[in-house]
Amino acid sequence: CKVHKICVLPGDGIGPEIMEVATKALSVAGGKEGETFEYKQCLIGGAAIDATGKPLPDETLEVAKQSNAVLLAAIGGYKWDTLPSAQRPERGLLAIRAGLNAFANLRPAIVPRQLADSSPLKRELVEGVDILIVRELVGGIYFGQPRGFGTNEKGERIGYNTDVYSEPEVERIARVAFEAARKRGKRLCSVEKSNVLEVSQLWKEVVIRVGADYPDVELSHMYIDNAAMQLLRNPKYFDVIVTGNIFGDILSDEASMLAGSLGLLPSASISGSGPGIYEPVHGSAPDIAGKDMANPLAMVLSAAMMCRYDLAIPKVADRLEGAVNAVLDAGLRTADIYKAGTPNTRLVKCSEMGAELMKHL
Amino acid sequence: CKVHKICVLPGDGIGPEIMEVATKALSVAGGKEGETFEYKQCLIGGAAIDATGKPLPDETLEVAKQSNAVLLAAIGGYKWDTLPSAQRPERGLLAIRAGLNAFANLRPAIVPRQLADSSPLKRELVEGVDILIVRELVGGIYFGQPRGFGTNEKGERIGYNTDVYSEPEVERIARVAFEAARKRGKRLCSVEKSNVLEVSQLWKEVVIRVGADYPDVELSHMYIDNAAMQLLRNPKYFDVIVTGNIFGDILSDEASMLAGSLGLLPSASISGSGPGIYEPVHGSAPDIAGKDMANPLAMVLSAAMMCRYDLAIPKVADRLEGAVNAVLDAGLRTADIYKAGTPNTRLVKCSEMGAELMKHL
Ligand SMILES: CC(C)[C@H](C(=O)O)[C@@H](O)C(=O)O
Ligand SMILES: CC(C)[C@H](C(=O)O)[C@@H](O)C(=O)O
Repeated sequence: CKVHKICVLPGDGIGPEIMEVATKALSVAGGKEGETFEYKQCLIGGAAIDATGKPLPDETLEVAKQSNAVLLAAIGGYKWDTLPSAQRPERGLLAIRAGLNAFANLRPAIVPRQLADSSPLKRELVEGVDILIVRELVGGIYFGQPRGFGTNEKGERIGYNTDVYSEPEVERIARVAFEAARKRGKRLCSVEKSNVLEVSQLWKEVVIRVGADYPDVELSHMYIDNAAMQLLRNPKYFDVIVTGNIFGDILSDEASMLAGSLGLLPSASISGSGPGIYEPVHGSAPDIAGKDMANPLAMVLSAAMMCRYDLAIPKVADRLEGAVNAVLDAGLRTADIYKAGTPNTRLVKCSEMGAELMKHL
Repeated sequence: CKVHKICVLPGDGIGPEIMEVATKALSVAGGKEGETFEYKQCLIGGAAIDATGKPLPDETLEVAKQSNAVLLAAIGGYKWDTLPSAQRPERGLLAIRAGLNAFANLRPAIVPRQLADSSPLKRELVEGVDILIVRELVGGIYFGQPRGFGTNEKGERIGYNTDVYSEPEVERIARVAFEAARKRGKRLCSVEKSNVLEVSQLWKEVVIRVGADYPDVELSHMYIDNAAMQLLRNPKYFDVIVTGNIFGDILSDEASMLAGSLGLLPSASISGSGPGIYEPVHGSAPDIAGKDMANPLAMVLSAAMMCRYDLAIPKVADRLEGAVNAVLDAGLRTADIYKAGTPNTRLVKCSEMGAELMKHL
């Protein structure tokens, strides 16, 4: 039992509302297991731009680095959409990922049994889907140099970016993915575009080499276009997927939709050494901000992932996840996951969902 | 009425079988409208590698350039999978696209009413979906320089590619997309990742500028990750999508799956000046090659697109499309689209599908 230092970043839109529920739930669940949390709240995203002019103030990164883990709600909103892109809220997100070297983004794509009917896919295809997407998060085309604007030899204006991976970058993310696969279904699918791109050829080669250390994990390879297709055709084929930054961005959002809603999907971005970042997959939903309509459950499940990974207090994670299951079983639904006419369900506000959650902790 | 010179590239796997059906159907349909076709058959892909050592022999490109249009079936197979990637069949495809400057890849994602139940998505979501994806095909990260392998400043081995677009490259594909949207639902969605990538910022800026010439077309913008999600959540939202080479590769394959099968999906890759390339979306299916099991309909529909676009003989296209509809209405299904137990359908071989098709022409 110790004090866990959590850097709390409510961010924008519905962020503060859902963060309030999640930290309360975390404190209560931790209390039952004798764990204590110390929260330091900092600015990021639009809120930080308004207060300091920067989407990631130095102080926020400092506090994050000194903490055991970072809980982040959501960033962005219409208000900042017209800023030049180098000054937008998203930059804060990219900067904190890079600043903490949070290179491994783990995004479970699970279809919760209580909501299997909300999937756009037919029930028989998605029931039981349980995919873990491991996305490289601090390399690839998001950060590759050179990048920018210029002119080509014909004098035409161009925009360009570099997609690049080094051997050690691929190796460390591959190891995270193999380790994860080993603890689950023991199947890993590496996704790239090696029939066209050199960066993907290096990726594939390194993944195969690392795979030699994991003979118990079945490794397969798939082109990104085919993977985008197979996620629809037969999502149960997948156990763990490992892929680069931009392909992971696309695939994990596509896979999220298998659940029909982002309302229950958490994510972890871990560094292996320092603190990781735990955040829901959904965005800041500026249209419903401040209306007590948000769904706090993905934020709570992100806190659970934090307990499991960085804080190594799995019992607290179990409690949080158990409570989320209990409120869903009890039929409570926020607007995003409510479907009129479904028997034994009831539309609730964010605060009520929070209050009910506490009862089940 | 004139003689249309067609460069015929059967390629690998099931390619020759489906090409035979398509050229026969084309000749018959053309005959009824007084149009004549002259076919010159050339090598590409694995077949070309075996015969000449090159996936795109110079002679093939020469014949293609002298023709009015290129009909391509499919390339690739297990046999060539172990070759170094610079010598693989796919390179032939990339080379002929670049060689003919076929910059605009048009891929309709339509869910044929006869097969709406084969979609992995719920019927109410896909019924009536009619999306046209306009993918830039000879630029972006597929062809950007510099590319290759090297070492970074830490001495680590790297693989890298450059994603780059120039203003004129974006402008010409945007015009194709706006023109297409104008003839359809008048809605165009440009897909990029401008919140992270400079190449996407240029893309978006140019698309907006070109859009000023098309006030009758409603232009929207979407990030690629969100587009991958919305294609599942609400595919009917989309009319025409315009996007770069790699994003188009991914999105068009994902969108293909909305139909449940690739068996009916054609594509056109047009240059605006010289001959375009017309090919089915599906691959060479080496596992069923030579077994008379392939579905020739996407190849026939590709020939129809050729008649509509490059050859400007829409009446022949109408005849081909009408015949495809007729055989589907008659319940004929090749193995890939056959679902045991569906009333009034019958499993047929490739040759039988071809013969029935001729009857309806
Ligand atoms: C907001 C954006 C920069 C970010 C990304 O592309 O990584 C988001 O889409 C995500 O997946 O977390
Ligand atoms: C075979 C491959 C090089 C090709 C591509 O990526 O363009 C294919 O996936 C396609 O979409 O036509």
